[in-house]
Amino acid sequence: MTQNIYKLTILRLDHRPYRDKRITTHCALVGRAFGADEFLFSGTEDLGIITVITKTNENWGGNYRIRFVEDALSFVNGFKSEGGIVIHLTMYGLKVQEKIEELKKLRQYKNVLLIVGGAKVPTEYFQLADYNIAIGNQPHSEVSALSLMLYLLDNLSLNKTFDNGKLKIIPSNDIKKIIRQ
Amino acid sequence: MTQNIYKLTILRLDHRPYRDKRITTHCALVGRAFGADEFLFSGTEDLGIITVITKTNENWGGNYRIRFVEDALSFVNGFKSEGGIVIHLTMYGLKVQEKIEELKKLRQYKNVLLIVGGAKVPTEYFQLADYNIAIGNQPHSEVSALSLMLYLLDNLSLNKTFDNGKLKIIPSNDIKKIIRQ
Repeated sequence: MTQNIYKLTILRLDHRPYRDKRITTHCALVGRAFGADEFLFSGTEDLGIITVITKTNENWGGNYRIRFVEDALSFVNGFKSEGGIVIHLTMYGLKVQEKIEELKKLRQYKNVLLIVGGAKVPTEYFQLADYNIAIGNQPHSEVSALSLMLYLLDNLSLNKTFDNGKLKIIPSNDIKKIIRQ
Repeated sequence: MTQNIYKLTILRLDHRPYRDKRITTHCALVGRAFGADEFLFSGTEDLGIITVITKTNENWGGNYRIRFVEDALSFVNGFKSEGGIVIHLTMYGLKVQEKIEELKKLRQYKNVLLIVGGAKVPTEYFQLADYNIAIGNQPHSEVSALSLMLYLLDNLSLNKTFDNGKLKIIPSNDIKKIIRQ
């Protein structure tokens, strides 16, 4: 795994516990698995999601952080004013294939915020984002967009390992092999 | 987009409408966006998901097919007996990085079935699968595993376009641009 002193943060907008619980949880798990440092969500505070991620860290290791953000717009403004780069993942954005080399370079010397939308993303986010990026210009999923973006930013994210986990998988072609350590 | 006469089919096991509706829908949309030919799901029949995909095809084009499968195990056995290759996506599987070149080659001359799990995948599927493949050995999401697998099988899947759609996005860095055609 490439070490990078610059932080990669994910912001999931407008979480609605009833409708989005599993989608937001999957977004948070994808962020952890593929190398983000922290996961923030706005909308409705939801301790269930924070609990899932905390337990995942306990079992599988690492220092991935998660928290609720009351005012997402003000957070994004603050992030930008401190010099961070804001990438909004949206099917309406520029093709990731055409921007990925530029984004990979920026990632080496800037903190990066990846925004994934909720039900309807207010126009302000399009305007605030340094990059509006589409992972394909077809409807699919914020979970999928996030995982492909993280992989494209760093192909080595597939090899990511974590310290201090209780559980570890021994890759196998025929059976679940899991060890406690 | 690479043309391929061999079919890529996705099978989502054990769909539960209440808990999984959005996850299964996102899996189906990911399959469509990134080049699968058809999406099958077992568990509980759910017309809602079929309707979403049918409407997505109407609006965004293409001939992606979706249907419910009553007996998934018998379907997988039949698929194998007709010479197809079965890849089961599981966090317990072999590292995709180490198998992807082999799988890309097979994809050129075999029909391929990608299985994504439900709540708990019965051992039979591990044993039936020609390949049990992990997209990272950490917990994340079937939506994410599927999208990365499809991308890794064919990097050009990001460029996939569809005929006969009513809607088309004009990629933009600052606004939603969508045209009716």
